[in-house]
Amino acid sequence: MTERRGRPGYDREGILKVAVDAFNEHGYDATPMGLLADRLGLSKSAIYHHFDSKDQILEVALDRAMSALEAARDTALDREQTAEARLVAVLRGAVRVLVAELPYVTLLLRVRGNTDVERNAVKRRRAFDRTMQQLVTAARDEGSLREDVDPGLVERLLFGMINSIAEWYRPQHGDTADVIADHVVSLATTGLFKPERIPALGS
Amino acid sequence: MTERRGRPGYDREGILKVAVDAFNEHGYDATPMGLLADRLGLSKSAIYHHFDSKDQILEVALDRAMSALEAARDTALDREQTAEARLVAVLRGAVRVLVAELPYVTLLLRVRGNTDVERNAVKRRRAFDRTMQQLVTAARDEGSLREDVDPGLVERLLFGMINSIAEWYRPQHGDTADVIADHVVSLATTGLFKPERIPALGS
Repeated sequence: MTERRGRPGYDREGILKVAVDAFNEHGYDATPMGLLADRLGLSKSAIYHHFDSKDQILEVALDRAMSALEAARDTALDREQTAEARLVAVLRGAVRVLVAELPYVTLLLRVRGNTDVERNAVKRRRAFDRTMQQLVTAARDEGSLREDVDPGLVERLLFGMINSIAEWYRPQHGDTADVIADHVVSLATTGLFKPERIPALGS
Repeated sequence: MTERRGRPGYDREGILKVAVDAFNEHGYDATPMGLLADRLGLSKSAIYHHFDSKDQILEVALDRAMSALEAARDTALDREQTAEARLVAVLRGAVRVLVAELPYVTLLLRVRGNTDVERNAVKRRRAFDRTMQQLVTAARDEGSLREDVDPGLVERLLFGMINSIAEWYRPQHGDTADVIADHVVSLATTGLFKPERIPALGS
C-alpha cells in the first residue's frame, strides 16, 4: 500500500464500503472496477490487492448482510424460550441489522440471482424466510397468535415492512433503530389501536 | 391497423401492458422502442400510432397506478366519517390496487425521478404519503390509536408493508386481495396476538 494521492489510504473495509455505495447507486452490473478505482483514488491493482474480483466484493458484502440477519435470528432462538418471544426478538434484531448495515442489506434486497454469488445469497434469504415462517407457525400453534393468521403471508408482510426500511430510512431523520423496532413489534403483536379498544373488536 | 403477423392486433391497452412488463423486466431506460416493437410483433410506427413516445407510455402507466391509489384514498375519505374507518378503508383499497394493478404499481415503485414524467409521479406519491400521514395523525388525535405512535413512521411502515406486495405477490399462489387486506388491517389495528392476550400486555 504505497498510494499517495492526498486521500487517506483505504483498507479492505474502506474499499468494501465505497464499492457497496457505488453498487447501490449505479447497480452492480453497471459499476466497472475502473469506476471504483476512480472513486477510491486507487489503481485497480491496489483494489485487487484486497479483493480477487468485483464478484468477490459483492460476495463479501452480501455475506455481511446475511450473516448479520442470521446472527440476529440465531441469538433470538438461543436466548428466548417461547415462539412468541423468539419472533419478537428476531423482528427487533432484524430492524437493528437493517439500520446498522443499511447499505449492505439494501444491496442484498436488490439481488435477483443472476450469478453464482447472487444465487447463493438468494438461497440464504429463502432459508431465512423459511425459518421465520416456521417461527410464525410455532407462535400460532403455541396459542400466542390468532388462529386465523396465514404464517406465510404474515412472514412476507412483516419482512416486507422491515425491508422497506432500506427504501426510506435516512440516519439524519433521527428515528433510532429502537423506535422503529418498537413500532414494528407493536404492529406485529397488538397493533396500533389503544388496548382498551381491542375487546370491542371481538364482538 | 393493418398488421397481419400471425399475432392478434394490439390496441393501446395491449401495447401498454406489454410495454410495462418489459419496463419491469429490463428497466425503463434499458428498454428501447425497438425491443417493444419486437415483443409486440409490430413496427415502431404502429406503436407511434398509439403513443407519441416511450416517455408517454411511461406517463400513462404511472398515471394509471397513481390514479388508482388516489381513487382508493378519495373513496375512503368520501364514504367513511372517522379517521380510523378512513384509514382502514384506504389500507384495504391500497392492497386491492396493488393486486389489481400489480405491474403498473411495480413500475411506479421503482421510479426515481430522473425525467419530468418520473418527477411528476414521485411528486404525486409524496402528496399521497402526506395525506396518509395526516390520516394517521387524525386517527391518533381522535383517540383511535395509541398516543405514543409516530404518524410519519407508522405511515412508512404500513405502506412499506403494502408496497412489498409488488415484490412477492404472485397471482397463482392463491392469496386473494381480501385475505391480504385482512392481514394488513389486523397488523395495523389489533395486531396478530389473540385479543384475550392484549390486556395483559398493558400491565
